[in-house]
This record gives sequence, structure tokens and C-alpha cells, in this order.
Amino acid sequence: MNRRDMLKLSSYVVAAASAPAVVASAEAPGAAGGSIARWDFVEIDLPGPSSGNPYIDIEVSATFRYQHRAIHVNGFYDGEGSYKIRFMPDEVGAWNWTTASNAQALDGKTGTFECVAQAAGNRGPVEVRDSFHFGYADGTPFVECGTTCYAWAFQAEQTQRETIQTLTTSPFNKLRMCLFPKWYQYNRSEPPMYPFPRSGDVNDYSRFTPAYFQHLDHLILELRGIGVQADLILFHPYDKWGYQSMPPEVDDRYLRYVIARFSAFRNVWWSLANEFDLLKSKTNADWDRYARIVEEFDPSSHLRSIHYSRSPYDYSRGWCTHAGIQDSHMDRAAGWRIDWRKPVVFDECRYEGDIASRWGSLSGDGMTRRFWLTAAQGTYCGHGETYIWPDNILWWSHGGVLHGTSPKKIAFLRKLLEETIAVGPGPIGFTSIGEDPYGARRSNNSVLFYYFDDQQPAVQNYNLPEGKTYTAEYVDTIALTRTPLPGEYTGKVEVKLPGTPWGSLCFREKGVA
Amino acid sequence: MNRRDMLKLSSYVVAAASAPAVVASAEAPGAAGGSIARWDFVEIDLPGPSSGNPYIDIEVSATFRYQHRAIHVNGFYDGEGSYKIRFMPDEVGAWNWTTASNAQALDGKTGTFECVAQAAGNRGPVEVRDSFHFGYADGTPFVECGTTCYAWAFQAEQTQRETIQTLTTSPFNKLRMCLFPKWYQYNRSEPPMYPFPRSGDVNDYSRFTPAYFQHLDHLILELRGIGVQADLILFHPYDKWGYQSMPPEVDDRYLRYVIARFSAFRNVWWSLANEFDLLKSKTNADWDRYARIVEEFDPSSHLRSIHYSRSPYDYSRGWCTHAGIQDSHMDRAAGWRIDWRKPVVFDECRYEGDIASRWGSLSGDGMTRRFWLTAAQGTYCGHGETYIWPDNILWWSHGGVLHGTSPKKIAFLRKLLEETIAVGPGPIGFTSIGEDPYGARRSNNSVLFYYFDDQQPAVQNYNLPEGKTYTAEYVDTIALTRTPLPGEYTGKVEVKLPGTPWGSLCFREKGVA
Repeated sequence: MNRRDMLKLSSYVVAAASAPAVVASAEAPGAAGGSIARWDFVEIDLPGPSSGNPYIDIEVSATFRYQHRAIHVNGFYDGEGSYKIRFMPDEVGAWNWTTASNAQALDGKTGTFECVAQAAGNRGPVEVRDSFHFGYADGTPFVECGTTCYAWAFQAEQTQRETIQTLTTSPFNKLRMCLFPKWYQYNRSEPPMYPFPRSGDVNDYSRFTPAYFQHLDHLILELRGIGVQADLILFHPYDKWGYQSMPPEVDDRYLRYVIARFSAFRNVWWSLANEFDLLKSKTNADWDRYARIVEEFDPSSHLRSIHYSRSPYDYSRGWCTHAGIQDSHMDRAAGWRIDWRKPVVFDECRYEGDIASRWGSLSGDGMTRRFWLTAAQGTYCGHGETYIWPDNILWWSHGGVLHGTSPKKIAFLRKLLEETIAVGPGPIGFTSIGEDPYGARRSNNSVLFYYFDDQQPAVQNYNLPEGKTYTAEYVDTIALTRTPLPGEYTGKVEVKLPGTPWGSLCFREKGVA
Repeated sequence: MNRRDMLKLSSYVVAAASAPAVVASAEAPGAAGGSIARWDFVEIDLPGPSSGNPYIDIEVSATFRYQHRAIHVNGFYDGEGSYKIRFMPDEVGAWNWTTASNAQALDGKTGTFECVAQAAGNRGPVEVRDSFHFGYADGTPFVECGTTCYAWAFQAEQTQRETIQTLTTSPFNKLRMCLFPKWYQYNRSEPPMYPFPRSGDVNDYSRFTPAYFQHLDHLILELRGIGVQADLILFHPYDKWGYQSMPPEVDDRYLRYVIARFSAFRNVWWSLANEFDLLKSKTNADWDRYARIVEEFDPSSHLRSIHYSRSPYDYSRGWCTHAGIQDSHMDRAAGWRIDWRKPVVFDECRYEGDIASRWGSLSGDGMTRRFWLTAAQGTYCGHGETYIWPDNILWWSHGGVLHGTSPKKIAFLRKLLEETIAVGPGPIGFTSIGEDPYGARRSNNSVLFYYFDDQQPAVQNYNLPEGKTYTAEYVDTIALTRTPLPGEYTGKVEVKLPGTPWGSLCFREKGVA
């Protein structure tokens, strides 16, 4: 065994050993065999200098090569003399890599690995599909259905375990979470660790706390293991420690560090901020710079967006892949689709709960309604939950368990969407009809889908697309019933409906959808 | 008895005799005594020429004088040689009048009458009060609560009687009604009479049909008798007879005619149009001209507005006294108040019903909610009802009887408003707080009023205005319950709430409201 082989082997062994249990058991591809599943990640772990300040002094990267492609990937220092370079291969076949560093011990190392087909359940990262929608890299539609546990990473271990358990049986397939600890109402405790070494009130921004970020590795991979996208919030204003107003060079180093650590995890999304406009010390130029850094340093090009409070962001900007808005005017969705030509996600439209704040006292049916309103405009909604609960554990920020009535109803909607309008393979584009009763359809007209909101028509007339025969299903979005309507529908049709509010109607082309 | 006295006496006798039974029985002030109640009307009935075309050839008017004031009032030809001049006196005391005409028989007639204090139930016309609101001329607040029976004037007599009966026990104190017959879905029959003599498809626009307008007199006075404002729609596009595209001089003569006939009725409001922008043959200059005519020829300066379909009207225009909008984005109300500095009335925000059209299939609770949303922004809403019903009699257009669930709930709201935020005498101005949970308050802070919509806070915090002590009442807007909350409230308070949606909270200053 020559030195190159040793390196290669050690990197896989380390990768497998350091990966959390969920990953290891779910897919952990042959550390022994020198192969890695597509959309899993390799981790090159190199011993190097631990003296001086490795975070600043040492640069390490690798170029990963597959046939004609060469992909540059930055590594990061993980403490105790350990330098890591992580990479998510996206092609099955033979890959090789070469490192580069200003430290001799890390420079010019090489290796190879075989990327093999992914196992069931690994669908790859989520991407934009058909302009307005999302899909996994393997082609499966991704019906975005998000929730928030902003500060779950900083809660008691038991709560973190509960959060994963809750998500396992919830309809939510994306979780917004902060990388920095949170200080806000209901969030008034010190985190168990700090991202930078901290002495009293002083942060040592020249270094990171490896254990802090290793813990985040673990949580993101836990989410990966249960099929939940981790929508990572890079900056936020709910802060008492100084992370909202660090020097620019620290911001940038922090961004490069978390990108190097997390971008090999296929379930990562980047959210530049929660309520960016409340970070008063940052300018538009700062946000532009952060966006460029995320674009430039993430070799896997994960989805990117930003979330605002009162100043709507211009989501037509080139760097962002989708709109991640905060608004509760759900009827604006269709217009924004037209404006931005991107997926529109209402990452925040208030939360189901009963707290005093208006953003956290939405009824369960009010939350559910917002999901229907967005779905019927070919857009997406986000959930959160703020019921006052013993020990002040509110799902919205802490995770734990869900108490509300909307998740069950949202699950019903997601299942309906996945079975109808988003069914694959084939085009999954919604086409908003642009006026209510809110209506969407698949671009090939194989599915037409309407939501009646607080309207209660006893009859509706449709002029169905030519040359197609449809079956119809009436959906009660509150009672959670799906009732096939008798007969078949072609051309101009009159459909009798129950004349009750909160209904939906779905036409499916016979023999197709 | 000299000639002057005869004239005077005859006018009162005729006025009393020609006025519908409701008026006569409700207030009919001394025809014999030569006196008239304030805000009732006198009608000078003069015999004159019936040859030629009296509608065009003859002009008649009167100047009514009270102390230093002189008010010019146009008369109209009512057929069969009868010329009438109607006038609503607004001051108690001695009045006199002199006619002028290009016909000798009608010129230079004079008379006097005594205007006496009004009887109970006669509060005078409705005016704008405190910029954003309405009040009767006697000072009583008018909590606008409108509905529509657009074409009730052209239905079977039995339906018209039912309409009056229904309105008598309904919460609605304003009715939108068309002066021209209506041709539209569910409205496909010829009217019993035409406003202009009609032969086949040809209208004789040079004459009016007195019986047609006498019937409208009767209906408007029926509404006056039960305390309902008649929001008269002067033009509309639902037409097959040609009234939407008459020559300009006919439009103008028609306007002067109906103004001369109806402006002495204290319950009249003028609405230039329903869905003005659908009257494709009319230009902005036409609408400006109509507005000027209504302003110029109505001696009583009744309230004036206009209603649109898709092109919002600029209600900052000087001629209109209030906004009479069509929109179902109720959250825009507070902003429009700020923009226009006028009362904002959602004359149309869809109707409770179950027909196929989206404008007519709102649930009862959806309709009710819209009334709450506007009220809590210091604005006003309009009802209509479109349940499919035997014989296609839909309240929205035909009148008849109400079948929906919202009127009872709207009545509950109106009563609450009248007992709290609009209680008089004294200032009745709402001050919108400008954000939700939707909140309004009396300008003197004696009442604070919130509506929680689909929010369900279990607790709310308030910083009550300094130096005042309040009691509080929780309102369930769907269950129609009003629950006094225990204790008194001063300064910073935390209020426990049921944590259910569709609630409202009302603070009332102790000992004041």
C-alpha cells in the first residue's frame, strides 16, 4: 500500500466513522470498498499543523475531477490538527482528487474513489424545476412543505431528539434553522456552546469552535437521514452576542467556513438571513457580497434565498434561486410568480398558535388555508407553531412536539398534491390561472386544481381543455375528505358542488394522472 | 282666500295626497295647517301646458327663501299638465317661495309655509361626519350597513312588498338600487314600464314616462318610511334597451329630471354608476359632467359616489363625498382612508350565496368577516345575497326575502357599534391604528375596538391611553356572544382571551361610553 492509497483509505474510514449514525446506517457506502454513493459525501481528513491560527493561516482545498470536469472545493479546519475537505459527487463513475494548500503537509495529496448509484431514499439535492417548482436531482418532484425550528440546535438534547422524532411523522420536508444562537422572546438562554471562542462578553472572531459546528453537522445529517431539507439561516437579528454585527472579514470567513462544512450535505439550502432588513448594521452591499460568496464557494450550488421583515426583497435578483418571503397576503402569490419567474415560497406567513404577537396567533384552519391558497396559485407555504406550552418550548423556535391542528391538514394537502398535480415523471409545472377561485394546472393540462377558500358555490362551470376527458374529485379541506364525483367530464361542463366553504376541486385526465 | 293662498293650499294638499301612505302616516304634517316638518318635503303642484313637449319646451323652478338664504330648485313635468317642484326644508321657521318659468301659467307663483320640528324617527338626511363617517342631520350617528336589491323596482308587486317587509327587520339601513331596468344573468325579463316611451326597440328619449318615475317616487318613500337610505344608481351597464349609451343631452336631461324628482327625499344618496368602467361608450369627461350636474342641481347636496368594476376610481376627486368601492381586499381599507380622507364604503365585496360566479358564492361567515374587517378599520361594508332560489328570485337584484346566515351576525355587529364606538352625541370618529389585529378607536379614546380575524391569541397586551379607566368586553363574532371581562383596565394591561379565532375585544371608558 503506497502513501496515496493510505490517504485515500483513511479519508473514507474517517468519513464513515465521523458521519452520524443516521447517515451511516442509511447509506454508509463502502468505506472499505473505496466507493461512495452519488449525492452522499466524501470527506478527506488530513492531519496538518495545529500551531498558530489554522483558521486564518492555513488554506486547504481540493480539486475533484470526473472525466472533463474539475470542481474546486475548499476545506476547513476542524480542530486538533484535523483538516477536512468534503464533497458531494453527483455523477456515477470514477473520480479523483488533488489537494492544494499553503501548508506542505496538506498540499498535493491525491486520491480516487468510485461513485456508485444511490440507494433508495437518496434522491439527491433539491433543485428548481420548471421555473416555479422544485424537484430532487433524481427527477422526483419535491412538493415543498416547510416548517421552522429556528433555534432547535441550541436546545436540550432531549428536545432535539424529540424534534427529529416529530419531523419523522410530520408533513414537513424542509426546516428553517439558524446557524447562530437566538435571543428573542421565549428565547432567553445562553447556548451550550458559542460559534467563536468567547470569554465573558468578548468573542474571538479569529477562530471557530469546532464542537459547535460538529454539532450542526450532526443535526443537518440527522435531517438528511429523515429526508428533511435544512434551510440554513446564515444571519439573523435575534442576537445578544454580537453575531449580527461582526466585522466584514469575519462575516466572510464565517460564510466560507460554513459553506465548506455543510455544502457537501445534499439537504442543505442557504437562506442569507431571517428578516435581513432588521440587521441594521448591514448594507445592501453587504448582502450582495454574502450572496456572491455563497454562489462562489458552494460547489454543489444549493438553493439560495433571503427572508425579510418589512422591506420586501427584490427576488428577481440573479443570485437567488427562489423567493423566500414573509407576507400574509397570500393572494399576491400568483403575481409574484409572474414578476420573478421563480418558485415563490412563503417561508413565513404567521404561525399557528395563541401567543400575544399577531405573527404567532393564527388559528389552525387559518394556517391550513394559507397552504391551500399558495398551492392553488402554484406557489408554496411555510408552517410554524407558537402555542404557549409548559417550559416555554414552542415548536416555532425550539422544536420538540407539535400541538396544533394544521399539520394533519397540511399532510392531507401534500399527499393530494403529490398524487395529482405534482405526480411524476413528466412536467410538474403549475400554471396559475391568475384569478380566483384560485386555480392551478399542470402545464400539459393533465390536472386542473381549484380552491374555493371562503366561497361556497353550489355549481361551477368549466370549459375543459380540448380533446381531454377528465375525472373529478371534490375535496373538503377541513373535514379532510376526498369524494370522487360521478361520471366523466369533457368540454363545457357544469359541476354540482356541496355549497359549503373551504372546498377544492381536482380534475384529472383519464388514464394519465 | 286670494290666489296666492289657494296655490299654497293646493300644493300642500297635493303633496300630502300624492305622497305614499307610509310618508303620510309616518309624519304627514299639517297639509291643512300649511306647515311641513323639517326634512320632510313640500311639493308645489302647478297646472300648466300639456301640449307640445313639456319635458323639453317648459322650464319651471322655484326659489325657496328662509331668512337670508335663497335656494334655487328645479321642477319637473309629471304628465297630464302637472308641473311639480319639490323641496326639503332644513330649517325650522317661516319659508316662502316664488316660481319662475318660460310658461306664463307657471311663472311668478308664490307661497309661504312654516317648517316645524321633525317628528321622532325623522333624523334628516345622512351627511359625512368626522371626515370618515356618517351621521344624520339631527346629530345621530349613522352606522352605514348597506345591502343591494339592484332591480327590485322592476319585480312583481308582491316581491316589492316582501322586500320592504324584509328590510324592516333586517340590519340594513342603505339599499343600492338602479333607476334603469336591468338585463343580466338571473335578470332576463322586460320591465313592466320603460323610463322613456318605447315603441318596439325604439326609445323616445324626448319624453319621460311619468308613471315609471312615480313608481320610483313611491319605492324611495317606502324606504324613507322604514328608515332605509336609497342609494340610487344613475347609470349601469346591464342593459339591453339602450340606456347605457344614450345621447349626452339625454343623459343630462335624465339626470336633471331624477334630481328634480328625488332630491327632496331625505333618504336619497346618488351613485353615478354601478361598475362605471363597464359602460364602454362613456368617457371620463362624461362622468365628470354627470358629477357636475348632480352637484349643481341637487339643492339638498345628498351624498355622492361612484362604483367601479376593474378600474378603481380616484375617490380623492372633489365631487364625491365618500368612496363607494368594489373590492374584496378588505385589508386595503385603512390605507384608503388615509389616501382619500373620506368615508370608505365597500359597496361591493362579493355576496353571500352559492351561485357559480365568484362574486356571488361567499359563505355567510365570509360575508360577516368582511363587515368586521371594515368596521375595525373605521370603514364600512356592503352586503348582498345570491342564493339560488326557486323562481330565480335572488335578493342581490330582486329583493324578496333573505336566506343567508350573515344578516343576523351583521345585525349583532351593527348593534355593538351603535352601542360602543358610534355612541352619540359627541365625536364618532374612528381612528384606525393602522395595523392588525385590526383596531379602531374613538377619537377621544373612550372606546378601543379590536378584531382578531383568524388569529386566536390566548393573551394580548395593551398600553391603554393615559388617565383613563376601561371596562372590557370579549365578543365572539360567530357565536354572537358578548362577555364582559372581569375587573377594570388602566395603563399597561395583559388581557386573557379564549384563544379561539373570530374574536373581538372592546374597551370602553368607565362612565363614558
